[in-house]
Amino acid sequence: MKANGPIPPFFESTRDGQLCIGGKAAGDWMGEGDAPMFAYARPVIEEKIAQFRADMPERLRLHYAVKANPYRPLLDFMASRVDGFDLASRGELSRVEGIDLPLSMAGPGKSDADLHAAILAGVTIHLESEGEADRALAVAEQVGMTPKLAVRVNPPFALKGAGMKMGGLSSQFGVDAERVPALVTSLIERGADWQGYHLYAGSQSLSADAIVESQRESLKLVVEITNATGEMPSEVNLGGGFGIPYFPGDEPLDTKVVGEALENEFNTLSDDFAKTRLMLELGRWLVGEAGVYLTRVIDRNVSHGRTYLVTDGGLQHMLAASGNFGQLLRRNYPVANATRFAAEATEEASVVGRLCTPLDLLADEIMLPKTEVGDVIAIFCAGAYGLTASPNGFLSQPMAGEALTD
Amino acid sequence: MKANGPIPPFFESTRDGQLCIGGKAAGDWMGEGDAPMFAYARPVIEEKIAQFRADMPERLRLHYAVKANPYRPLLDFMASRVDGFDLASRGELSRVEGIDLPLSMAGPGKSDADLHAAILAGVTIHLESEGEADRALAVAEQVGMTPKLAVRVNPPFALKGAGMKMGGLSSQFGVDAERVPALVTSLIERGADWQGYHLYAGSQSLSADAIVESQRESLKLVVEITNATGEMPSEVNLGGGFGIPYFPGDEPLDTKVVGEALENEFNTLSDDFAKTRLMLELGRWLVGEAGVYLTRVIDRNVSHGRTYLVTDGGLQHMLAASGNFGQLLRRNYPVANATRFAAEATEEASVVGRLCTPLDLLADEIMLPKTEVGDVIAIFCAGAYGLTASPNGFLSQPMAGEALTD
Repeated sequence: MKANGPIPPFFESTRDGQLCIGGKAAGDWMGEGDAPMFAYARPVIEEKIAQFRADMPERLRLHYAVKANPYRPLLDFMASRVDGFDLASRGELSRVEGIDLPLSMAGPGKSDADLHAAILAGVTIHLESEGEADRALAVAEQVGMTPKLAVRVNPPFALKGAGMKMGGLSSQFGVDAERVPALVTSLIERGADWQGYHLYAGSQSLSADAIVESQRESLKLVVEITNATGEMPSEVNLGGGFGIPYFPGDEPLDTKVVGEALENEFNTLSDDFAKTRLMLELGRWLVGEAGVYLTRVIDRNVSHGRTYLVTDGGLQHMLAASGNFGQLLRRNYPVANATRFAAEATEEASVVGRLCTPLDLLADEIMLPKTEVGDVIAIFCAGAYGLTASPNGFLSQPMAGEALTD
Repeated sequence: MKANGPIPPFFESTRDGQLCIGGKAAGDWMGEGDAPMFAYARPVIEEKIAQFRADMPERLRLHYAVKANPYRPLLDFMASRVDGFDLASRGELSRVEGIDLPLSMAGPGKSDADLHAAILAGVTIHLESEGEADRALAVAEQVGMTPKLAVRVNPPFALKGAGMKMGGLSSQFGVDAERVPALVTSLIERGADWQGYHLYAGSQSLSADAIVESQRESLKLVVEITNATGEMPSEVNLGGGFGIPYFPGDEPLDTKVVGEALENEFNTLSDDFAKTRLMLELGRWLVGEAGVYLTRVIDRNVSHGRTYLVTDGGLQHMLAASGNFGQLLRRNYPVANATRFAAEATEEASVVGRLCTPLDLLADEIMLPKTEVGDVIAIFCAGAYGLTASPNGFLSQPMAGEALTD
């Protein structure tokens, strides 16, 4: 037997013994066919946003990182609840068409077409290199507009204990801190509408102390760069990094601790920064726990004494749950039998997808209630980096559905 | 500096110093926009098929595993050169519509809709469990047809040294060997058009000895099961397993050795098997080396003394090259500067994709000619499990193009 990841506390209610999502039994969200589906529960997202507003400094703005989940009904829902959207491509820009919010675009490989679209739409571009700065200015001149440009700083420190570190080392993200003052001065001289800074030290951290330290270091670095340039930034995006519990033993991030420390840091900033917009961009932490991937059991196959529950889903929709996306060691996501959610776990089984590859393992030797063909399996923590971060075309299997639920 | 994978020997010619594919310089295959592309070189596939026909027993049929690359022009090209197609889903069945070849379908999660489509189309179904057998017979009865059924055997041995083992252990694939005779007897009693057996012990092996041993064991097992049932199989699919060199130090599989040993094994079969169709299903080995992923350099970013070549591609098209698909340790695929293919490698650089994640690493600290923005980077061995095995929607980046080239 192997441990199962922790089921998010938002999903405790049952209906007729089934997992209840948005007032309906999980099985009632499934269609007649053999396509799995993602349910994204609005109340969970609302609770996370409320937690952010309660725990973090009032001054801190909340941006949503569209890349975590670009499902349009979810974006529309977010639009009235956050203070801005962060984009990773011009494709994401077209996904937010018609939404009236401050927008920014980051990413190391912005093509001229990306820059062109961003400038026309008035998006703040987080420049990742001096070369990108030159190209952005050239594109802006072509279209006769003043570009809104910020500089992404490659910080000389990393977010400790993060699932992914994006600073403290040589990296393709942003401009090394010591080269930033010269770039800012040059942007202003060349007539750009310079906005400020973007710092991103890592993601998926559950350690409040590590996030506090990284935010303190980030602000310190901004003050140093500001002293060097003599130019006050209009905005400082402190990145993200807030993780969610996926695996056995993971504990939720203590955002109260993070908020109090950040409030203290804000209070130490000089009055010159009074008008500077300060923000975090969060994706996974806002929407990850809201998502549940629902997939039906097609077959029970017993081999050499082990039971395999073969589902109509798989890594083509939930690559990360199979352990094939940035994990060194495969561990189990939180997985349950949604049809028998209230029942006692009495058998050991592995949950696999329908793909013809041993990689397609969704839960390895976990305890479940006795599971029958037709039962619905729920994989939790599926709201961020789920469907769009998976190889949907692999083996030409049916596409998963999506729904925003109450 | 880290080692680069071996560039397949088929790509040695240059034109104006550029890598030459199908008589054109690599850069001429690229469009004006910022979308990467996959070139699949027909001559390489033809050479592989000719090698198979020369080295393997004349009696052995060659099936193509569509899942490796389901690009329709490639399927049309294959159709007149191989003896059958193996499918992994009803989606793949619709991709081969109009192609007149023997078809089979394997995969652990066949839904009733998959079985229905396969039976109507006269596809031989490789049954993965007793439960699937029951469902296939029920669906066949509903539509009033006699289903063509074969049994996938979970062999009690694995393909040694394979990239992925699919036998020798408890597995979701196929029926444990000791339960196979009873299933075959029951299928025949229940009126199915029973075809024979499918055995698949693993994939991506470069060891001729390991493949020889696994094929010998497979045939031995088929003879044992045949002795137990007294029923002669019309066909025996011996699976695949032929690997290609991806990584530093990999050597090509010696198919002469495999073919000679298999010829000997065939000669030991009793005359009762004279009419049994014997086949291998190959995907990666036939098309993997034919594919080249071409992506343009958008930016050079230098950070703490290291050079990053940021391309307009990434793991959204070539997940396996980033090390995130079934690899325990990340190693470099064969990667080159296609624009300066004839030039000496003089600088160390990492090639990254345009995604905003450190996972998007296409080549780590390899030696390349001095590379400029606008140069085309080639990633070889991209013909199998490339585009369709990657998260194409991730970060809403442009889709890659595809072309079958001379």
